Amino acid sequence: MDQRITTQRVIYSYTDGELKKKEDTIVTEFPLTIVLNGNEFATMVCTPTYLKEMVMGFLASEGVIRFVKRDIHSITIDENKGFAYVETTTKITPTIQEHTKRFIGSCCGKSRQSFYFQNDVKTAKSSMTVQTVSFSQCIDLMKQLQSSSGTFQATGGVHNAAICTPNKMIISRTDIGRHNALDKLYGHCLINEIKVQDKVLVFSGRISSEILLKASKIGVGILLSKSAPTELALQAAEELNITTAGFIRGNRVNVYTHPERITL
Amino acid sequence: MDQRITTQRVIYSYTDGELKKKEDTIVTEFPLTIVLNGNEFATMVCTPTYLKEMVMGFLASEGVIRFVKRDIHSITIDENKGFAYVETTTKITPTIQEHTKRFIGSCCGKSRQSFYFQNDVKTAKSSMTVQTVSFSQCIDLMKQLQSSSGTFQATGGVHNAAICTPNKMIISRTDIGRHNALDKLYGHCLINEIKVQDKVLVFSGRISSEILLKASKIGVGILLSKSAPTELALQAAEELNITTAGFIRGNRVNVYTHPERITL
Repeated sequence: MDQRITTQRVIYSYTDGELKKKEDTIVTEFPLTIVLNGNEFATMVCTPTYLKEMVMGFLASEGVIRFVKRDIHSITIDENKGFAYVETTTKITPTIQEHTKRFIGSCCGKSRQSFYFQNDVKTAKSSMTVQTVSFSQCIDLMKQLQSSSGTFQATGGVHNAAICTPNKMIISRTDIGRHNALDKLYGHCLINEIKVQDKVLVFSGRISSEILLKASKIGVGILLSKSAPTELALQAAEELNITTAGFIRGNRVNVYTHPERITL
Repeated sequence: MDQRITTQRVIYSYTDGELKKKEDTIVTEFPLTIVLNGNEFATMVCTPTYLKEMVMGFLASEGVIRFVKRDIHSITIDENKGFAYVETTTKITPTIQEHTKRFIGSCCGKSRQSFYFQNDVKTAKSSMTVQTVSFSQCIDLMKQLQSSSGTFQATGGVHNAAICTPNKMIISRTDIGRHNALDKLYGHCLINEIKVQDKVLVFSGRISSEILLKASKIGVGILLSKSAPTELALQAAEELNITTAGFIRGNRVNVYTHPERITL
């Protein structure tokens, strides 16, 4: 097991009236503060792996950068103290406050009611993909995701996310935070300039509106989850033309939006 | 089912090669923006119940207020637009940015290494409780929490939290956000001036450092969870003298910190 992801600890385990002292595997949690052009921008509490990818993905999903090569001058990570120092090529100094400013839609018209932050209105984009995936591929991809994660099996304490073709996982990331796992994937795709329009995003966590918007920013058209969606997420998915499926467990799949991309 | 918490939606359900169109129950998700003395402070995405309690609990856990009667002049909630307008008795105008400023500990000494935000250093407090609870009471309280939540049973999409005596649940709250469920409990206790020092906090979600710090701010000394803890949360629990137990499932309990408060 990766020592950055988990650690050992002595615990007291009670089962059916019997108490035992034993060693257990516990997930780590690491605060990383992003300093953007000299100003504190945000603190993420995360699993300390792929930090550079996570920071890039986070800044892109906040709308601070669009491309890594063009927009990032330098990034230095101090893993001891938990700081990421980012310098952009253009000397912007946004604060997280401005970036999470509530977006107020016009009084009539249904458009973008499901977007509540101004930066989401700017950065989320409708999917134009014609990619499809079959139900049995959905089930198989979820099995691949779950069996790839030794950390989850050991601790029950992390989320997993993967970018896949309809047949196989290309890259997977693990984090105690659902958003961070997606930011790590997003950052990887940005740094390596991987096109994801025809890919499938497979995820262990619930589909909240924030997760759905992040999937849209990453650029995928199909989002598969082991868990439940929220109504607000499904409204955003309808509007952004994203196929969502949830509760992928055993031989079961629930399809919520744009079912035309999932075939029998 | 409460119409604020869930809604009905037509979905496509696939099981073992067969596809059916059916109605399903989906949790709602609601963005609520807190405007504090005329300035946008934060947007919470939540289950739209007990909003006043949630806002009070959130502001207290951010260190903006300490008491409701003394510190709150007025709160008005616009449920249509999703805004909570809060006026405090003293005209402070903090921004969430200041409140989430990274706390940097002194270079040596172990104290408060697990606190990474300045407001947590100010507001989290060590537990002085001598309350104990038995293993079988832990198991029973978790069963009470789970069986009380019809929403979870219907959707799989929410978290539950309850303030309990060693024998029974006093008050429980449900939310799609783990933090919000705790903020709703905290706000309820503040508004009704309920002392919680000798109470037990029972929770369906993982014990992250943020959840542990919130339990400390609420003021309980015993935190029971159905799920896994993180190492950073356990370090904070040790320091704040809080008993933590996790994976309370069936007849099993894992005790991580301050085991002296859980008896055979």
